[in-house]
Amino acid sequence: MDQFLEYVDKHQNDFVERLRKAVAIPSVSGDPAHRPDVFKMAEWLVEELKSLDAVVETRDLGKQDFHGTELDLPPIVLATVGTDPKKKTILVYGHYDVQPALLEDGWNTDPFTLVEDENNRLIGRGSSDDKGPVLGWMNVVDAHKALGLELPVNIMFCLEGMEESGSEGLDAFIFEEADKYFKDVDAVCISDNYWLGTSKPCLTYGLRGVSYFHMKVKGPAADLHSGVFGGTIHEPMTDLFKVMSKLVDVDGKILVPGIYEHVRALSDEEQKTYDDLSFKMEELHDAVGSKINIHDSIRETLQCRWRNPSLSIHGVEGGFYSPGDKTVIPACVTGKFSIRTVPDMNPKEVSALVVKFCQDEFEKLGSKNKLDVHCTHDGNYWLSSPDHPNYVAAAKAVETVYKVKPDLTREGGSIPVTLSFQDALKKNVLLLPMGRGDDGAHSINEKLDRSNYICGTQLLGAYLYEVSQITL
Amino acid sequence: MDQFLEYVDKHQNDFVERLRKAVAIPSVSGDPAHRPDVFKMAEWLVEELKSLDAVVETRDLGKQDFHGTELDLPPIVLATVGTDPKKKTILVYGHYDVQPALLEDGWNTDPFTLVEDENNRLIGRGSSDDKGPVLGWMNVVDAHKALGLELPVNIMFCLEGMEESGSEGLDAFIFEEADKYFKDVDAVCISDNYWLGTSKPCLTYGLRGVSYFHMKVKGPAADLHSGVFGGTIHEPMTDLFKVMSKLVDVDGKILVPGIYEHVRALSDEEQKTYDDLSFKMEELHDAVGSKINIHDSIRETLQCRWRNPSLSIHGVEGGFYSPGDKTVIPACVTGKFSIRTVPDMNPKEVSALVVKFCQDEFEKLGSKNKLDVHCTHDGNYWLSSPDHPNYVAAAKAVETVYKVKPDLTREGGSIPVTLSFQDALKKNVLLLPMGRGDDGAHSINEKLDRSNYICGTQLLGAYLYEVSQITL
Ligand SMILES: [Zn+2]
Ligand SMILES: [Zn+2]
Ligand SMILES: [Zn+2]
Ligand SMILES: [Zn+2]
Repeated sequence: MDQFLEYVDKHQNDFVERLRKAVAIPSVSGDPAHRPDVFKMAEWLVEELKSLDAVVETRDLGKQDFHGTELDLPPIVLATVGTDPKKKTILVYGHYDVQPALLEDGWNTDPFTLVEDENNRLIGRGSSDDKGPVLGWMNVVDAHKALGLELPVNIMFCLEGMEESGSEGLDAFIFEEADKYFKDVDAVCISDNYWLGTSKPCLTYGLRGVSYFHMKVKGPAADLHSGVFGGTIHEPMTDLFKVMSKLVDVDGKILVPGIYEHVRALSDEEQKTYDDLSFKMEELHDAVGSKINIHDSIRETLQCRWRNPSLSIHGVEGGFYSPGDKTVIPACVTGKFSIRTVPDMNPKEVSALVVKFCQDEFEKLGSKNKLDVHCTHDGNYWLSSPDHPNYVAAAKAVETVYKVKPDLTREGGSIPVTLSFQDALKKNVLLLPMGRGDDGAHSINEKLDRSNYICGTQLLGAYLYEVSQITL
Repeated sequence: MDQFLEYVDKHQNDFVERLRKAVAIPSVSGDPAHRPDVFKMAEWLVEELKSLDAVVETRDLGKQDFHGTELDLPPIVLATVGTDPKKKTILVYGHYDVQPALLEDGWNTDPFTLVEDENNRLIGRGSSDDKGPVLGWMNVVDAHKALGLELPVNIMFCLEGMEESGSEGLDAFIFEEADKYFKDVDAVCISDNYWLGTSKPCLTYGLRGVSYFHMKVKGPAADLHSGVFGGTIHEPMTDLFKVMSKLVDVDGKILVPGIYEHVRALSDEEQKTYDDLSFKMEELHDAVGSKINIHDSIRETLQCRWRNPSLSIHGVEGGFYSPGDKTVIPACVTGKFSIRTVPDMNPKEVSALVVKFCQDEFEKLGSKNKLDVHCTHDGNYWLSSPDHPNYVAAAKAVETVYKVKPDLTREGGSIPVTLSFQDALKKNVLLLPMGRGDDGAHSINEKLDRSNYICGTQLLGAYLYEVSQITL
């Protein structure tokens, strides 16, 4: 392993060049004009993987309906390096598409030209999300090939081109291939999230789920003039505000009865995991751009992000939303809100509680308007354990490369593919991030620090060594 | 007068032809592409008025800033027929611009081709709002000229081309000309509203005012992801829903303390004016397209429309308003609502009460977000009296033409020019509608019944006779 670590360090610039080439392909999956670039990116990966002696194939996912236009979905790139039955097989997932980026959005440099600044930050769209990590795995294979070393495990790549646009077709593919292409997989590792802060690596073992709701109130047949009808009819907007204002209090407590019933109690043991995290309130203030935190301690703040449910109101469809003044009584309005769910909440139960609460509160109003409230989609929370050998191996790898114990973190958002792999393959999934919390993955001036890219490549390789040694 | 009434009846088709020519000019003030047509309409009126021996002039109102583009404002067309100092001078106001209309909006026929259907409805954009009434006045002059009869009063026309687009420049013009062009005016008559229902003419003597409010709650520096930040910060949308839900109850009662303090008590006398109105709940149901009326009686319903304040929530700017699901925490949201005001509410006081209430309620929440609430514009209510001689004259004219006593109505909306004329000229203003409540002034298939156009022309003429006889 030492030979490998040294090689990576010495060949930094080759790896940065590889990242430069990848960033130069504007594989924006959300923009139909860039769809050919997403395909180009897939081809580039196929060639690159072949040059590393991987056995590569692509899988067609069919067509996408993009607001009425049919678009070809980018392929899944599958690659295998090594098929030794005596070795473990580790499946690594990543995505080769990126978020949109335009110079005029406020980038300091062209987003698709990788630039290294005076602080050795590699700036460019996709540098951190997720081309850097994907290339990290390839760098590991590259280094072994150059050194004439055997890899400690068989690596299987599953690379997607639609992650930033809803991962269309991916879930079905994973379940379809679970006992085919993926049948020999022993564990999964995904490098597509971030350190908690900016100074310390982490392993991520939990994600919140999300249940999204539409609450529609329908009254008149068409929008009405408030001068003529104001005061004479039940107004849908009034009803909507009445009911939605009862969902959550200002301090984030959800007011739907029963919603906290199955939220797992905080054990002393879990409480301790919040003791020594590398995160400061200033980092929250910087990210928010304002000091509107509900809690003053890191502990409570992170517990609210990671292990407590939350409810956010996103907006209203059907009302007047433009600048200026318009005296309309909207005929039909739909309030949008979502609940982040945590262990051991059950999405079906959450949905039933929320729907019933809204219906009851609406009933109490005595309005003659019509209410329809339903859950439009839900995704379950995901929770692994830092005690699982897959995580223990990763923790050892962090200590080898960074000389520190990793933070053990969860995240407030969802990465649905995590749960899909776990459910389909029935194997442990590890989230092992490469970038820092301030990389600005979906913002302007996205960056990946050179040290994160290089040490991250070492980390991914070290993890393969550790996991090859452990009993899963 | 009998000669005049008979002439109008006999020459119906000539008057319909005049309306056909006017409707054929698509003078849509809100669409820059149609601005030349608005000018064309002004020129057509100028020629038509000159052919009736009126002394005509146009007044330039300068330029308009239309979303950054400079557009020429259509002129005010001023015309005077007769300057006999022994006669009264009646100022008539109308507008020659119209609402937008496209066949594809759902019109059964081309909106700018006047069509008469089997029920003798004259269908076309502007037929009822407001080309029909404007031509009604011109038909009166025409009939007198043809008959070689002197008009009983001097008529002064003030015709505007921007009414459907905010009447830009009109107010300043009225105040500027109050003791110049308009100095000899004895009374004002505006025919630009509608009968209460479909069967009986009315005189309209009151309008509600309107005060519009923006309530802005600002939190984070930019929109945030609800997965990452939900539960850890005070969310502007939550605060907005909390406060705005407290403004009004589902039955239309405004909950701002003190708001009803100066609302004029309902006297027995006023109560009686609601006894015999030609309006059925079915007409409200038809207009709303749904049975969501708060009150079951006509009396209460019309009192709520005409003489009680109301509060409507129009929408939210800054939130997620599109179809679909988006898990955003909006950084800055602005709730829009307005209050319809009535005698004897004072807009300044209303504004102060509303602002204080919102601030107090926001304060109670204990949120760290920032609130800004203010009144963006207000227009006062207007109230005349059916006992004023100008109204008594109009009521006699209704009895002459229609053989019924008119409904005495108020309206829930605002017609700001009414108050402007009253304040600037210090003369009584009468609203004397020509069309029916179901004309669909701003909708598809706008129509004016032939009988309303012809009897309406007779009514306007008869009013001039009656008002010439009465002491104002
Ligand atoms: Zn990603
Ligand atoms: Zn991403
Ligand atoms: Zn009008
Ligand atoms: Zn109009």
